[in-house]
Amino acid sequence: SGKDVAKPSGRVFAPYAIFKGKAALSVEPVLPTFTKIEPGNLRIDRRGSVMMTFMPASGERKYDWGKKQLFALSPTEVGSLISMGSNESAEFFHDPSMKSSNAGQVRKSLSIKPLVDCSGYFFSLTVNNSILNTNERIVVPVAKAEFAVMKAAFSFALPHIMGWDRITTGQATHGITSLPKTSPPQLGLEWV
Amino acid sequence: SGKDVAKPSGRVFAPYAIFKGKAALSVEPVLPTFTKIEPGNLRIDRRGSVMMTFMPASGERKYDWGKKQLFALSPTEVGSLISMGSNESAEFFHDPSMKSSNAGQVRKSLSIKPLVDCSGYFFSLTVNNSILNTNERIVVPVAKAEFAVMKAAFSFALPHIMGWDRITTGQATHGITSLPKTSPPQLGLEWV
Amino acid sequence: SGKDVAKPSGRVFAPYAIFKGKAALSVEPVLPTFTKIEPGNLRIDRRGSVMMTFMPASGERKYDWGKKQLFALSPTEVGSLISMGSNESAEFFHDPSMKSSNAGQVRKSLSIKPLVDCSGYFFSLTVNNSILNTNERIVVPVAKAEFAVMKAAFSFALPHIMGWDRITTGQATHGITSLPKTSPPQLGLEWV
Amino acid sequence: SGKDVAKPSGRVFAPYAIFKGKAALSVEPVLPTFTKIEPGNLRIDRRGSVMMTFMPASGERKYDWGKKQLFALSPTEVGSLISMGSNESAEFFHDPSMKSSNAGQVRKSLSIKPLVDCSGYFFSLTVNNSILNTNERIVVPVAKAEFAVMKAAFSFALPHIMGWDRITTGQATHGITSLPKTSPPQLGLEWV
Repeated sequence: SGKDVAKPSGRVFAPYAIFKGKAALSVEPVLPTFTKIEPGNLRIDRRGSVMMTFMPASGERKYDWGKKQLFALSPTEVGSLISMGSNESAEFFHDPSMKSSNAGQVRKSLSIKPLVDCSGYFFSLTVNNSILNTNERIVVPVAKAEFAVMKAAFSFALPHIMGWDRITTGQATHGITSLPKTSPPQLGLEWV
Repeated sequence: SGKDVAKPSGRVFAPYAIFKGKAALSVEPVLPTFTKIEPGNLRIDRRGSVMMTFMPASGERKYDWGKKQLFALSPTEVGSLISMGSNESAEFFHDPSMKSSNAGQVRKSLSIKPLVDCSGYFFSLTVNNSILNTNERIVVPVAKAEFAVMKAAFSFALPHIMGWDRITTGQATHGITSLPKTSPPQLGLEWV
Repeated sequence: SGKDVAKPSGRVFAPYAIFKGKAALSVEPVLPTFTKIEPGNLRIDRRGSVMMTFMPASGERKYDWGKKQLFALSPTEVGSLISMGSNESAEFFHDPSMKSSNAGQVRKSLSIKPLVDCSGYFFSLTVNNSILNTNERIVVPVAKAEFAVMKAAFSFALPHIMGWDRITTGQATHGITSLPKTSPPQLGLEWV
Repeated sequence: SGKDVAKPSGRVFAPYAIFKGKAALSVEPVLPTFTKIEPGNLRIDRRGSVMMTFMPASGERKYDWGKKQLFALSPTEVGSLISMGSNESAEFFHDPSMKSSNAGQVRKSLSIKPLVDCSGYFFSLTVNNSILNTNERIVVPVAKAEFAVMKAAFSFALPHIMGWDRITTGQATHGITSLPKTSPPQLGLEWV
């Protein structure tokens, strides 16, 4: 939309990636964007997320970037993941076109289920496209230690994707657009 | 009071909001204020809080901002919330006019109780005004994942509302008033 | 000693204080100090602590600052406290003159014990002075929520009193003395 | 390799050291390095670690720095350690020459096992060198409180060694090399 700003330079790429035999999973925080409001203050405009990128393997230690599928965890979904007990499951459903005329065409679901031997979790992303009549599924087994890294890293990232680090430090220099807004902020109704 | 400073620009608004059928709950940290003391040091003046804003619904996906009720969690109350076990309850009582001649006129209580199916908590704010003879109650069901976000975000915010982030970084640039103080700091006897 | 620097301005005072009927307890982090080493690097010189100040009551809501007793928790003692289970106890012993000719003259012990009804902990500081032939004891009951604040705030403070926040951010601007050192760093053998 | 930069000044040394009768263990985070990519962005180049240094004792309160052995915990190994339950064990295997022609010549294993009385853990580092035909083992008993410090400090360090603190603050001023890279980042295949 018109409110979007060009991707700023100064971005830092540091994904946490898990490479397994049949697929890979990479996770990385995406910061929220802010809008300037009077007098010289900022209001969160689009909340951040933890972006999960699933890629199927195309050979030994090779992964097909062109067939990647994305799933952006909202702050509440991040809260759900970091509070999961050791035998618990979680499932999240997204419609990338929610609230638009294309609603319902693509449905994504992310399922997190404990492995039978309790050594970790299956992360399964299913993407159903009713227009193209496709149904894709990418599954990555995540070891307990890798899940622990996710929990710790997501806990660290959570206040940042919520924008609370800005409140507490006043560091308000990234992702800011200065166009005026008259409507209340739309917090995250559109998700990958 | 005379010590108050004008609201500084540079503030950042990033509430975490939960919208439910009958009411909404929004939470946001409020930073402490500091006073300059000799020689060039700072002393915490008014401790921070986590401000909770309850709003009753006025229609489908609409909330009545004019009927909002506030409840400011002190650091110790935040500590109480973040240490709650999964079946535990908590209740906090505030008198916004405590220590003044109006003490006792308005009584607020916030109750946090687990849902029967353990899928989350009821947050109930009751405001009793003995002058206006009113008694209002706003109840918001908070899902387990939303409660997990609160716990993580409040844990992040706690050192900031206590002012300990200033001790450890020396970032002493916000919320500072330079009027001298002769009395010991009044830490949070007045609360919304 | 000659390595000491004058207390810098720019300090921030934000104690977390608990006022009870017979005594008060105030806690606050104390940052480590660093020494410049070649080429333009820093080495931790004196590790930080969490300083606990106990004060006996001298009347209703009044506390006798002149009779205060200090106890500086080392990083490992902080680790002990933040890992305490809900029914566990801890006890720490300090000799402020350890390694000097006055060793053994003053002995301090801090005892943390759960209350019988599990609603919190007793913090008891005993100071025994064999020269003055005195034995003082100050006890403060700490509620569960206050203990939770301590745990969260001490967890936040721990990397800072260890100096690890400097490693990870390079913010090396506080508490630095530039006198050369030839001996290895003495990490916290002298404690209040 | 040619991508290496000279050790920058501005480094901060603040190891957490545990001195025991037969050996000492010192731990410290090592930050990741970054590469500049177009347009003005950064990509993680070599991930960080928590470096563990084991030193055998050479006398009373003396340790032989010349006989030190290193073991660099990867982010996933750090995740494994911080998620260890109170009766759990962990073991990690490293080959410092992995993926080179010297692979298999030196094998290191770090074993973490609970003490029989549950008062802490044994940290045992074994280094087997098939060329020199040597097999060295250094064991340090780590008390429960010291392990708690490690867990808290490693949890703090984890987002930093992953580079996620850069994503969330944009503080991109350390450990940067500007040589172009055409291959995908090699995330930590070579470990001490």
